[in-house]
Amino acid sequence: MGEMVRIVVVHDEKLLRSALVELLRSDDTLDVCALCPDADVPDREAPSADVCVVDGECLTGGDDGRGARLRARYGDRLVVLTTAKRPGVLRRAFDGGALGLVDKNAPANRLITAVHTVAKGERFLDETLTVALLKGAEMPLTTRELGVLTLASQGAPIAEIAARLHLSRGTVRNYMATAIRKVGARNRVDAIRILQSAGWT
Amino acid sequence: MGEMVRIVVVHDEKLLRSALVELLRSDDTLDVCALCPDADVPDREAPSADVCVVDGECLTGGDDGRGARLRARYGDRLVVLTTAKRPGVLRRAFDGGALGLVDKNAPANRLITAVHTVAKGERFLDETLTVALLKGAEMPLTTRELGVLTLASQGAPIAEIAARLHLSRGTVRNYMATAIRKVGARNRVDAIRILQSAGWT
Repeated sequence: MGEMVRIVVVHDEKLLRSALVELLRSDDTLDVCALCPDADVPDREAPSADVCVVDGECLTGGDDGRGARLRARYGDRLVVLTTAKRPGVLRRAFDGGALGLVDKNAPANRLITAVHTVAKGERFLDETLTVALLKGAEMPLTTRELGVLTLASQGAPIAEIAARLHLSRGTVRNYMATAIRKVGARNRVDAIRILQSAGWT
Repeated sequence: MGEMVRIVVVHDEKLLRSALVELLRSDDTLDVCALCPDADVPDREAPSADVCVVDGECLTGGDDGRGARLRARYGDRLVVLTTAKRPGVLRRAFDGGALGLVDKNAPANRLITAVHTVAKGERFLDETLTVALLKGAEMPLTTRELGVLTLASQGAPIAEIAARLHLSRGTVRNYMATAIRKVGARNRVDAIRILQSAGWT
């Protein structure tokens, strides 16, 4: 038997976090502890680990987000849990350099294999996710178009979006129209629905 | 030690389902098996159980939905996992007669306590959820208003909503306006966002 692998588990919901910890502990060579993703733990107090298993939904936010903080702390030794239905989450994890991508619909032993693979510094990619990554997991919108739709999805009216992005209302309407066309939506609400369900916003 | 309690676990994501099974198995008096909520198992072949632990997000759909099917199968012996942020899911579970309501942010032993309580035919309500149930967990919209907004949230334009609900466009617009006002939203997108995040649609 090899050395113990230290694991940190990050998931928003405490009960599911405990459940994942319990699942990983079924492997005697794993030394597991749980971390609340919102806990503002200073880096020097954060649990050190060989691998961080993280729910893909926790990797939100830009450069200052939780994803960036976890990457700064654990490097590429991240095993991200997600599904083929969330290409946005998938792409964010992949582009961020996470070595492990595990399908939430995989059997439990896949997660354990992924953890051991990533602990050795090797890449682990569930094949169900590889296909989703290859098939049009490119973000179709420009940063501006995505910005406009993201503000709209939070309920902001055109005038407010224009003010916040320092654009004219006409320009906001143009970005919106282009974005709706690009994602193949029927209208604004439809475009927001498509972006959200793919995990782009 | 009492008799063994037979548990069925229902969660959309296989990995999390396995993790919950593992967590429950840490109690030696529980006999646990997992069930895929989308599996169209005929009732006579469904695993029999004393208690069904189910992710609240699986209790969607109306009378023919998965929630109704689980209730028909396991009666009131349901332990539903949800959070205070989803009053719609909470209310649906409560009104449907589920005996157990457990906060997804509760520690693991709360779930185990809930399972034993419900197995005895008694009610288990996490106090964090009780407050959310008492505080405005009433659905503010009429069935018609909710119907209009639900179709809109799927990307349907006004004309299509009117045709599908056999209403005039003007009536659809009126329902929409009332619904937006009632939920305190700024516009249609905002109203949809509020309803979805509360778990009403």
